Amino acid sequence: MTKKIRIITPHTTPRPTKLDELAGLDNFIDVTFSQVGLDTGPASIESAFDDALSAVGVVSRAIEAQNEGIDAVIIDCMGDPGLDAAREAVSIPVLGPGETGMHMAAMLGHKFSVVTILDRVCPILENHAKIYGVQDKLASVRPIDIAVNDIAHNETLLIEKLTEQSLLALTQDKASVILLGCTGFLGISEKLSAALQDAGYPAPVLNPLRTAVMTAFGLISLGLTQSSIAWPPPSPKAIKGFTIPKLVS
Amino acid sequence: MTKKIRIITPHTTPRPTKLDELAGLDNFIDVTFSQVGLDTGPASIESAFDDALSAVGVVSRAIEAQNEGIDAVIIDCMGDPGLDAAREAVSIPVLGPGETGMHMAAMLGHKFSVVTILDRVCPILENHAKIYGVQDKLASVRPIDIAVNDIAHNETLLIEKLTEQSLLALTQDKASVILLGCTGFLGISEKLSAALQDAGYPAPVLNPLRTAVMTAFGLISLGLTQSSIAWPPPSPKAIKGFTIPKLVS
Amino acid sequence: MTKKIRIITPHTTPRPTKLDELAGLDNFIDVTFSQVGLDTGPASIESAFDDALSAVGVVSRAIEAQNEGIDAVIIDCMGDPGLDAAREAVSIPVLGPGETGMHMAAMLGHKFSVVTILDRVCPILENHAKIYGVQDKLASVRPIDIAVNDIAHNETLLIEKLTEQSLLALTQDKASVILLGCTGFLGISEKLSAALQDAGYPAPVLNPLRTAVMTAFGLISLGLTQSSIAWPPPSPKAIKGFTIPKLVS
Amino acid sequence: MTKKIRIITPHTTPRPTKLDELAGLDNFIDVTFSQVGLDTGPASIESAFDDALSAVGVVSRAIEAQNEGIDAVIIDCMGDPGLDAAREAVSIPVLGPGETGMHMAAMLGHKFSVVTILDRVCPILENHAKIYGVQDKLASVRPIDIAVNDIAHNETLLIEKLTEQSLLALTQDKASVILLGCTGFLGISEKLSAALQDAGYPAPVLNPLRTAVMTAFGLISLGLTQSSIAWPPPSPKAIKGFTIPKLVS
Amino acid sequence: MTKKIRIITPHTTPRPTKLDELAGLDNFIDVTFSQVGLDTGPASIESAFDDALSAVGVVSRAIEAQNEGIDAVIIDCMGDPGLDAAREAVSIPVLGPGETGMHMAAMLGHKFSVVTILDRVCPILENHAKIYGVQDKLASVRPIDIAVNDIAHNETLLIEKLTEQSLLALTQDKASVILLGCTGFLGISEKLSAALQDAGYPAPVLNPLRTAVMTAFGLISLGLTQSSIAWPPPSPKAIKGFTIPKLVS
Amino acid sequence: MTKKIRIITPHTTPRPTKLDELAGLDNFIDVTFSQVGLDTGPASIESAFDDALSAVGVVSRAIEAQNEGIDAVIIDCMGDPGLDAAREAVSIPVLGPGETGMHMAAMLGHKFSVVTILDRVCPILENHAKIYGVQDKLASVRPIDIAVNDIAHNETLLIEKLTEQSLLALTQDKASVILLGCTGFLGISEKLSAALQDAGYPAPVLNPLRTAVMTAFGLISLGLTQSSIAWPPPSPKAIKGFTIPKLVS
Repeated sequence: MTKKIRIITPHTTPRPTKLDELAGLDNFIDVTFSQVGLDTGPASIESAFDDALSAVGVVSRAIEAQNEGIDAVIIDCMGDPGLDAAREAVSIPVLGPGETGMHMAAMLGHKFSVVTILDRVCPILENHAKIYGVQDKLASVRPIDIAVNDIAHNETLLIEKLTEQSLLALTQDKASVILLGCTGFLGISEKLSAALQDAGYPAPVLNPLRTAVMTAFGLISLGLTQSSIAWPPPSPKAIKGFTIPKLVS
Repeated sequence: MTKKIRIITPHTTPRPTKLDELAGLDNFIDVTFSQVGLDTGPASIESAFDDALSAVGVVSRAIEAQNEGIDAVIIDCMGDPGLDAAREAVSIPVLGPGETGMHMAAMLGHKFSVVTILDRVCPILENHAKIYGVQDKLASVRPIDIAVNDIAHNETLLIEKLTEQSLLALTQDKASVILLGCTGFLGISEKLSAALQDAGYPAPVLNPLRTAVMTAFGLISLGLTQSSIAWPPPSPKAIKGFTIPKLVS
Repeated sequence: MTKKIRIITPHTTPRPTKLDELAGLDNFIDVTFSQVGLDTGPASIESAFDDALSAVGVVSRAIEAQNEGIDAVIIDCMGDPGLDAAREAVSIPVLGPGETGMHMAAMLGHKFSVVTILDRVCPILENHAKIYGVQDKLASVRPIDIAVNDIAHNETLLIEKLTEQSLLALTQDKASVILLGCTGFLGISEKLSAALQDAGYPAPVLNPLRTAVMTAFGLISLGLTQSSIAWPPPSPKAIKGFTIPKLVS
Repeated sequence: MTKKIRIITPHTTPRPTKLDELAGLDNFIDVTFSQVGLDTGPASIESAFDDALSAVGVVSRAIEAQNEGIDAVIIDCMGDPGLDAAREAVSIPVLGPGETGMHMAAMLGHKFSVVTILDRVCPILENHAKIYGVQDKLASVRPIDIAVNDIAHNETLLIEKLTEQSLLALTQDKASVILLGCTGFLGISEKLSAALQDAGYPAPVLNPLRTAVMTAFGLISLGLTQSSIAWPPPSPKAIKGFTIPKLVS
Repeated sequence: MTKKIRIITPHTTPRPTKLDELAGLDNFIDVTFSQVGLDTGPASIESAFDDALSAVGVVSRAIEAQNEGIDAVIIDCMGDPGLDAAREAVSIPVLGPGETGMHMAAMLGHKFSVVTILDRVCPILENHAKIYGVQDKLASVRPIDIAVNDIAHNETLLIEKLTEQSLLALTQDKASVILLGCTGFLGISEKLSAALQDAGYPAPVLNPLRTAVMTAFGLISLGLTQSSIAWPPPSPKAIKGFTIPKLVS
Repeated sequence: MTKKIRIITPHTTPRPTKLDELAGLDNFIDVTFSQVGLDTGPASIESAFDDALSAVGVVSRAIEAQNEGIDAVIIDCMGDPGLDAAREAVSIPVLGPGETGMHMAAMLGHKFSVVTILDRVCPILENHAKIYGVQDKLASVRPIDIAVNDIAHNETLLIEKLTEQSLLALTQDKASVILLGCTGFLGISEKLSAALQDAGYPAPVLNPLRTAVMTAFGLISLGLTQSSIAWPPPSPKAIKGFTIPKLVS
């Protein structure tokens, strides 16, 4: 009874495979991972504008996943684009690493901070924390706020900057847990964890994608999914300009 | 110096003209109203799914409006679909009647309630109140929860049901102001207001579209618009599958 | 159908005319402005003590205004002295620039800050934000905290200090909108706005008196006023020591 | 070292003596009570309008009290009119039974409710709970909402109505403590307490005036008073129309 | 690499085996479950008094578990007695089904309700929701409030009562998810889920112990545990009257 | 009618007598103080672990006190260990100086800060503020964070460090009142108060034990105690490993 979890990467670029990021989890659970991108949408997600462009594609991919017998889908972005819409559209669990990561981080400390790249996404994540109901546990959202190009091929600098902001979160904002604020921080969580430990602040560092996968597997095992009272199926109606797959089952 | 305000109705059906709903406001302000619908999107808005389908169209229409020299745009739906994305995309004021109506209602009483049609949109509006920062002033969101078809050609029943829920809001939920919870309740606000007065509860009743128009005109007159620090322009990037107009100015 | 808006300046000094501060608004709306001061009360408003001394005078002026056919009154002080009492006393809209400015600022960004003169009024404004229901959107109240005499004839210094605190609000407190925290900052809002733009932080700057005027005009146009359920007329009773005008209409 | 506590009854009617209400407390503490009314102000306090009219008189009486060597003053009204202003004006402790009662009630249960006479004062007390910082502990404010004349000479009816609302608070609103919501409920607290006990709900019932007295005595004994950082003395300035006594010491 | 999860049942009675309650989870994960009770403490947990009596035993059992190479421990009670103390005492993950269940329930709907047995534990669970940071998502805590003896051998009545309160939570309190409020409700969650579905309200029903197990397994797989910054090891010091095991590793 | 107040010091070390700390209060009230320690428990209280170890002893001492005719008990620790359990166990008032101090501090300023020794207790006190319902008034909890040994015989250093953190609280965190965060700070409150006054920040400084004593005396005088609805007596049941005294009356 191998379970199937699908990663929906909500953009259109030749995306890095996120399956590498999940390496080792299959030592614990009997699961097959797959990843899809979008045919329509933005090249990357950095704004509410990008969120809006990706949401329709995410919904379509979620419906396809359920039609193909996938057991749970994960939206591969901390902004959780299309989360509510996809939860209405399908009955299998739909998880956003933003929501899942925040709740798991909340349980592991008195307060947690999110460290991310861009200043502009901070209010988006803060607003999400309000909706998810964990704002009292959110110490801060801290951006490293340097150009993506400067860190693209410079993992050392990235870790240095993340460590710097994480330490500020731990020492100034009263955080005791760090949640990585971008699912595109690949292969970083253990290194950041080690850096914080070396600095004398051994805070848990949550990798949002891996955390979402284990939470999804938990829900599958428990036979649970999002409430259809909270996210009832959308009423059938005419749609122009988009071809949304039909839910078969 | 006539000002131009555009109503973006975020769906694709042969929509009722909302310009009638604005009748009389031009006695007060020197403004030209126009209304556009969407080429792509759902036939109506009743869910997060519908919101997702309409957001891209709303953004496009907002960009077109700014290119045409419009002074402010209003998204014609209490769910404010595409509001954040459109505010990033343009520099003219973009208003959602949900946000504007809630803030204005908050100023007119100790607490306000929203009366709307469908039970399923209540948590969406409650979540918006959290983001807009007025949840402490929101007494309740109350649906009349009857089939749209039953009220489509039965204004008497609609007003009866809205009156019933409004009176419950005023007597049980501690509301002292009523905000109509759907911009499709046409020609209703004064009748509901009169019904409440007759019942001994003379609460202000806010028509969300008219309220948004006057707020938009206020912003235009004050030379104000949404903060570009809060909603910075999206980074230029490749987009697949959508043709978003370019902002000219 | 020219509308009449009255500014009630809640102190007794030979006050600066605030009508100059409203210059240009009559290009947008067909309105006559008038301003009155108080016969009884303090020479200026800087404390809860001053508020208490001015409230009775504000109420009297509000009743007179309604008796004279004025369409809306605005209390010319960010502390909104007498606001609740005046709203009970009359049925025309009574606006406080504190309340109105905070709600409008809340709509224009993720968070807003108030920049004001004296440290001692900060908790008063913070408390008002709680009552008005916008405390989650209030990033900070920041005083420039220099002696009034030092800035009285030194607009350059005033703007320099306001710019300094505004930039701290924008960079450290996560504000994206600035609300001027004193209706006595005359002719300042545009200059502060320009200074912030020059510094690379183009936040909207709200002039509280002008914002209140446009909001008042909006309410008039919409036929709305504060809820008489929230602020019911005071029961008639004997009053000693004050001569409060009788409401005629 | 007998201490002196003064009750400032913030209206002008030939008031009932509240000293009877304090009977027996002098068995516990070595204190002399005195009571004063106002020369100027309303005949009774039932609204924000009445609050505004009484505040100046309260401040004057507080200054006189300090000049006379009184150790603490208590404003004899649950609406705490003039509390902030009087705290600025004097350095001896100024207590409002609304604030004191709410904090003491908060300590005696998980949540408390206030039972009062008039529906119209409920939002005023709810707003005060926000400012005092105890709103999370406030289960409800419940009015008995019958005409004052009906209960004036009918203590039996008054207790019956208070019992009814208190039981609703205890069974429906999750309150476990009752705070009487009017300092004019004379000689009632023990009878209400007995009635609740008889009904099987032995909740503590707080008499706000007696509670304020014991809290005031506690502060005197501890050498504490309100913070002059929070309520700094008002700047000296010209005042027209009121004769406020000068603080001597 | 079989993982070991231990259930610490925090009382001293010949307890029902909870391992039956976990039946089937080992189809999903490679784990060995064990259960221990307490040598010292109360016969059951129904109050803060019982919590206090059980906490020391819980801590001791947690230390023993880590010494025995257990990978995670779960405190078998919705009141999470000893949770903070045990987290300080050991470095393996310590989970309380109250905390875990509330966070997972929060993710599956807009709001959730807890249905439990006794009225007296409701404020305890409400207080925990505040500490865990999910109070905004907690619709209500509803007791069935009948004597334990009446349901002990009457599962039909228990399910009937739980269904009744769950339906009230779903229809009156705006919950869309139900969390069972007692880990002693054995074999009930699926039956309650079916009953709700039959009643037309197909809300997810969370079994708190099973949910805690899957969350614990997720943490183990992710290499995560509670933050030692939030719960630092207790300083070594003399203890009288208790024999607390020493942590070996 | 001398009243009897008992201080329960919740640890086992040859504790310093706290009766000296209460010196002078008997000039104001007719009361006999007594102090007891614990037979079982930790040598001092610095963690949730220590809290858990002391709670049972606190409960036993509270029951003994009531049996001996004591009028009120005070738990001699800012962490209020065993507070809820003891309130269930007895009917005389049980006070925690953490809870009492926070509520009294809340009444004396707009916000208050707690200054304490160890960083690790800050989240514990912050959590308590949430439960007590005063978190909106809590400006900060600030540790001096130096080794206890360094200050044990160095009162000058202790006061210097407390002054430093108090001034930061007053100038940076918007506190206007200081609450000492440890009942083991003996003979310090007046010196800290003087130091703050010298520094130009004359904030009230609350000694938590003295404040609790006066509040307890107030409750005794008013005939009040904690609600038995909120803290109902624990059901009688078998207890293993602890000998809890029986409540006689």
